Amino acid sequence: MSLNFGRDLLAIPGPSIIPDRVLAAMHKPSPNIYGGPLIDLTISLYPDLKTVARTSGEVAIYISNGHGVWEAALRNTVNPEEKVLVLATGFFAERWGGVGKSFGIDVEIIDFGARRDAAPQQLEDRLRQDKAGQIKAVLVVQADTASSVKNDIPALREAIDRAGHDAMFMVDCIASLACDQFEMDKWGADVMVAGCQKGLMTPAGLAFVFFNDKAKEARKHTNPGMYWDWVSRTEPEVYYQRFCGTAPTHHLFGLREALDILVHEEGVEAAWQRHERLAAAVWAALDRWSSAGNLEPNIAAPSNRTVAVTTVNTKKGDAGRIRDWCEHQAGLTLGIALGFPLEEANDHFRIGHMGHLNPPMLLGALGTIDAALKALGIDHGEGAVEAASSVVAGHKSV
Amino acid sequence: MSLNFGRDLLAIPGPSIIPDRVLAAMHKPSPNIYGGPLIDLTISLYPDLKTVARTSGEVAIYISNGHGVWEAALRNTVNPEEKVLVLATGFFAERWGGVGKSFGIDVEIIDFGARRDAAPQQLEDRLRQDKAGQIKAVLVVQADTASSVKNDIPALREAIDRAGHDAMFMVDCIASLACDQFEMDKWGADVMVAGCQKGLMTPAGLAFVFFNDKAKEARKHTNPGMYWDWVSRTEPEVYYQRFCGTAPTHHLFGLREALDILVHEEGVEAAWQRHERLAAAVWAALDRWSSAGNLEPNIAAPSNRTVAVTTVNTKKGDAGRIRDWCEHQAGLTLGIALGFPLEEANDHFRIGHMGHLNPPMLLGALGTIDAALKALGIDHGEGAVEAASSVVAGHKSV
Amino acid sequence: MSLNFGRDLLAIPGPSIIPDRVLAAMHKPSPNIYGGPLIDLTISLYPDLKTVARTSGEVAIYISNGHGVWEAALRNTVNPEEKVLVLATGFFAERWGGVGKSFGIDVEIIDFGARRDAAPQQLEDRLRQDKAGQIKAVLVVQADTASSVKNDIPALREAIDRAGHDAMFMVDCIASLACDQFEMDKWGADVMVAGCQKGLMTPAGLAFVFFNDKAKEARKHTNPGMYWDWVSRTEPEVYYQRFCGTAPTHHLFGLREALDILVHEEGVEAAWQRHERLAAAVWAALDRWSSAGNLEPNIAAPSNRTVAVTTVNTKKGDAGRIRDWCEHQAGLTLGIALGFPLEEANDHFRIGHMGHLNPPMLLGALGTIDAALKALGIDHGEGAVEAASSVVAGHKSV
Amino acid sequence: MSLNFGRDLLAIPGPSIIPDRVLAAMHKPSPNIYGGPLIDLTISLYPDLKTVARTSGEVAIYISNGHGVWEAALRNTVNPEEKVLVLATGFFAERWGGVGKSFGIDVEIIDFGARRDAAPQQLEDRLRQDKAGQIKAVLVVQADTASSVKNDIPALREAIDRAGHDAMFMVDCIASLACDQFEMDKWGADVMVAGCQKGLMTPAGLAFVFFNDKAKEARKHTNPGMYWDWVSRTEPEVYYQRFCGTAPTHHLFGLREALDILVHEEGVEAAWQRHERLAAAVWAALDRWSSAGNLEPNIAAPSNRTVAVTTVNTKKGDAGRIRDWCEHQAGLTLGIALGFPLEEANDHFRIGHMGHLNPPMLLGALGTIDAALKALGIDHGEGAVEAASSVVAGHKSV
Repeated sequence: MSLNFGRDLLAIPGPSIIPDRVLAAMHKPSPNIYGGPLIDLTISLYPDLKTVARTSGEVAIYISNGHGVWEAALRNTVNPEEKVLVLATGFFAERWGGVGKSFGIDVEIIDFGARRDAAPQQLEDRLRQDKAGQIKAVLVVQADTASSVKNDIPALREAIDRAGHDAMFMVDCIASLACDQFEMDKWGADVMVAGCQKGLMTPAGLAFVFFNDKAKEARKHTNPGMYWDWVSRTEPEVYYQRFCGTAPTHHLFGLREALDILVHEEGVEAAWQRHERLAAAVWAALDRWSSAGNLEPNIAAPSNRTVAVTTVNTKKGDAGRIRDWCEHQAGLTLGIALGFPLEEANDHFRIGHMGHLNPPMLLGALGTIDAALKALGIDHGEGAVEAASSVVAGHKSV
Repeated sequence: MSLNFGRDLLAIPGPSIIPDRVLAAMHKPSPNIYGGPLIDLTISLYPDLKTVARTSGEVAIYISNGHGVWEAALRNTVNPEEKVLVLATGFFAERWGGVGKSFGIDVEIIDFGARRDAAPQQLEDRLRQDKAGQIKAVLVVQADTASSVKNDIPALREAIDRAGHDAMFMVDCIASLACDQFEMDKWGADVMVAGCQKGLMTPAGLAFVFFNDKAKEARKHTNPGMYWDWVSRTEPEVYYQRFCGTAPTHHLFGLREALDILVHEEGVEAAWQRHERLAAAVWAALDRWSSAGNLEPNIAAPSNRTVAVTTVNTKKGDAGRIRDWCEHQAGLTLGIALGFPLEEANDHFRIGHMGHLNPPMLLGALGTIDAALKALGIDHGEGAVEAASSVVAGHKSV
Repeated sequence: MSLNFGRDLLAIPGPSIIPDRVLAAMHKPSPNIYGGPLIDLTISLYPDLKTVARTSGEVAIYISNGHGVWEAALRNTVNPEEKVLVLATGFFAERWGGVGKSFGIDVEIIDFGARRDAAPQQLEDRLRQDKAGQIKAVLVVQADTASSVKNDIPALREAIDRAGHDAMFMVDCIASLACDQFEMDKWGADVMVAGCQKGLMTPAGLAFVFFNDKAKEARKHTNPGMYWDWVSRTEPEVYYQRFCGTAPTHHLFGLREALDILVHEEGVEAAWQRHERLAAAVWAALDRWSSAGNLEPNIAAPSNRTVAVTTVNTKKGDAGRIRDWCEHQAGLTLGIALGFPLEEANDHFRIGHMGHLNPPMLLGALGTIDAALKALGIDHGEGAVEAASSVVAGHKSV
Repeated sequence: MSLNFGRDLLAIPGPSIIPDRVLAAMHKPSPNIYGGPLIDLTISLYPDLKTVARTSGEVAIYISNGHGVWEAALRNTVNPEEKVLVLATGFFAERWGGVGKSFGIDVEIIDFGARRDAAPQQLEDRLRQDKAGQIKAVLVVQADTASSVKNDIPALREAIDRAGHDAMFMVDCIASLACDQFEMDKWGADVMVAGCQKGLMTPAGLAFVFFNDKAKEARKHTNPGMYWDWVSRTEPEVYYQRFCGTAPTHHLFGLREALDILVHEEGVEAAWQRHERLAAAVWAALDRWSSAGNLEPNIAAPSNRTVAVTTVNTKKGDAGRIRDWCEHQAGLTLGIALGFPLEEANDHFRIGHMGHLNPPMLLGALGTIDAALKALGIDHGEGAVEAASSVVAGHKSV
């Protein structure tokens, strides 16, 4: 007997749940792209995006996904054969490096594994060795969607500064923007990349590169080709240059609505705090479940975890069984293992808790996982969901 | 700080949550109403509605709400000045009687209060007294949305039969159809009324009268007027008579999709079982919460509760505070007190658990109520949500 | 080869084309019906509806179609066995009378046929004969959707006044409201009925009774039954009385948006003028087509035609062929013959030109009919579409 | 007085009108991107896209617009410093060349102006001169959206063959695919690029590169970088490689629906024929209008015109006035001048007639332009719209 006859709940770490209002905003006829309201709508997006990123720099909007802006960020700032240093903490920074390698960049990786954050000291040490200044950029993800680690961006910035190194600091906030606190200018990121389909609550298809004056300077020495070139996108003579061709009309409609919600109704800081509270609720539940020894958070210290997604490690095969039960018996879709060895595919699951999320959604996901553990006979500590509801209620997490 | 930035969850006892597919089916241009696909679509609804009601009788579809079909059912079967007997168990049967009174029917009420179901023996006793056969119909609701009582329809039918009385047996399934088991033919209901906006998962605006041969016979002696007349609606010479005028085009689109889900994908019996399981989960949580003495189910015996809604009684004012916290802090809307003295408005709340509902939605509602109790400092027993998740998992309810 | 692969164009006289914005407004989750924004939204509808009807009287909103409010209007004002006088000018006034007959009203009909408007003098004569004041109400449609005649409401009012008769004057504006000029108070209508699915641009399912003090007085002597009673709907103690039960949530969303467009963006008078211009364009085309003798307008004098729909008479069978060609070859749906003898079913077609309509839509319909005439070899005068475009351009109609 | 209160009609040459069904298909929650139905849906698109392009080759789907696939096509096949030959016939081929220049390709242009198609003989002559085989590719658009010229793709292919040259033949069908007949394999195109927002009836945001074995061979000698690399997109080891990262979920939903309409309901050849007929109707109207000397088609010979868009030249400033009148008085949006000198901005307009288009839409556009000419007092020949309706009817165009 399946109980799966209600509204499916998607709790994967992106694409996240799209607000009904955003979908409705996209359910519109094609507009004129050479005049009329679309122009003003488009222009209104830039300041709001910068508000989200906490920057007074520039932002280029690309019709692409995260991989696209990984390439855009590198093509605008680093030349083939130049070196970048990747701080790998799971899956995605290394892939970013792979994109660079694909067009000839010399990619050096410091691998911190999939269960800890990047160590500032190791970064500092490596940069100090680079007397010749060959390292043009340091690449890191704020939140690795696979491992659910959160890197300490200010600390890494300080490490670069302590080393007195001139490398650009490039941060991937694809999974974390509008979820984890991020302060582009204050924290000294020179380039930041993001996508629309996670904390920005818009169907996948737009991505962003934010950049500051230092990055602009670097751009003078590169040739990104026309599509990735951020200059024409941010200093256009005519409208269509903003998108290097036809504008992504319906995504612009959607993003406008999403930014209305995020920036003008909730507020970015309030959104961070909401994510913090809801993530703490997940972790409180996980602590209880884990007490019986069959589950554990992939990242031990809560301070090293992103508030956008939580990776859970299980006994052999349990994660696969939990995901299946939740999806087919209850209508809850959890995230698969990513970035782990293939033979561990069913030993990890991820709970996405990013974007358009409130207590009924979050506690519904946790309650369903609790039901799955019970249905599958996976021994677990008691009181998990109530530990979560206690955090939601505003009580200190345990 | 509000956590209310996700998808609102409506847990009132109707209108219930409309499946996305139903809303999408209604997002269509106006169709031709004199030819084309609308005709076939309309005709396809009748057998499916009968499948839901478990009847081989007739069903008339009205553009109206439940009050409309209350009036339709009476206008087609009972004349002004004739008597009907109302079995009142909360709020709605008495109101049905009120509709009859409004056009001159002699309404006699047996009031069972708001915390118990109608007693078959009392019905039998009353009917036995009616030697003259003045009582033309017995009116009862299967599930009273206000009190959340469920009346025992087969037992009441047997009471009528034991009394050897000829009254029609008229049942209101507005809140219960497709939630609580109901067998129109097997259980001997002569007339049954229902609406589209609860178990049938369609926006409010359509309602139904099901009737059998005995009711048809009664119709020969009444004059309902054209709009309520079920004859032309069920034996039309031309299409528009089915709706006594312009068809409710978009509601027909929506209802078609909803019946596809209910009848052709899940199946009516499976839907009953799902509701039973999910209601049991609610009750398991409520039992735990209640153990501290501050909350209690309005209907003591689970066998007397509808599986569509649960009315909860609280200490003075607590229900109002719980509703407010859930709505404004978390995005969960609970049902208000209905059918209780005005001064008790904040001492009862209702959890709707009807229609388009799965474990993440239900456990999300219960988890949020649990958070409200904690946030508001209302003492409650522990383990409520997990008692619910245990039932969801298929374990025996406690 | 079919060219029918674009957006279908519906040019029937109701349901009319629903604006995308109205459909979008209805694509929403179910709201709370006991509190929250729905209450304010509902209350905001009444003044706007009165603005459309040009009245300071009352308006009751019914979940029903036009037939429902026909019955409501009569049930609230006339008792069974009392007499009403129907001025029949096609199809719909007589049907309204039929609704009255169905519950015992004594209906007298003056039949003006299907090709002319009601003659004020005949009305005056008849009322003068009624020395005893037996006629309680005079019923007329402003625009008969079948014949496309427009009755002269002010002239009929004057006829009643000249006769010095006390009958209520009840006008059906179902097809004409917000299309043809109508001034309820100034023109002295006591009761007016309308639906949402024509000039009000909302999917079928709501209908309205407007009434003044004289009608209110009549209500004191009737018993409409609860559902049709306009008292509780217009003087409610609690919200749900406005709809005698569950509110039609999604239709209210839709109507709100439609009234925003009609009342707050275009303006009612501008809408009348737009309809006048577009109707004149239809008639200019029809004049040209007709010059070859194979088509003719059903109503000879333009001043007697409604601006909402035009009935066209053809040679035997041509109308059916034109409708078929337009629908299957081109994606244009025209209205069928209504109110004519069955054997003439294919000898009349109707062009709906009501509500959400602009030049591309109207000229697209006319151009397609022109193509049909050519494809089918039906001889017709030249220059029809350009005669229409000339009117659209603001030139005098021919 | 504005008549602009109906459904706006967009008649620009892309983005074109999106079918309601496509918009509805995109109005869906985010799906899982690592499993479930999205995978199968995605895979189903490839054969249908190839059916549209008439090829048994490969197709890579990009989250991008037309400029993106211009770059993708060149990056996969031509190296910086290598030469391509651009046949410029208006605006877009030259821009494609500009994209190549942006990353260092040596672009040679033969400019045929904006009013004629590319001459095969000139191409042949130039290729014969290239004894060294320095020209790696010949770039041409099938239909130039600015000038509305259609190039003769088979004749150009024959010119290459006659010259015995080995250059790849790369065709831009962005504006013409599914409108003008195009036979990738039969006509010998090696690479073809297209977008989703014109004949494919999907909101802007996806674009396509089709390629054959010869192009695959060229790819072995290039390094496009990861995002543009068509290898991983067409020979993926895991699903996400198809899109080099996160899939464009909602656009895939939309494209699936659009291809259902185009490939499985209408059929590609029928779509071509529909476009031919409707374009002929436009031209018949334009011939008549032009007879007074104030308007003219930009491309003289109908055989050299694309069936997707028609560029119209007017007297000084008239085009601007026509566009304004149509948009503000009537709700019809026409295309602006593109590719002409800036001072001619108001001397050309374009009528888009591509994609989701039927007679009421097309004749509505033409009728409205006719009204504009009359309203603005621009002298024009008579009988234009009827010349169009005659073509729609199936009569020979004049």
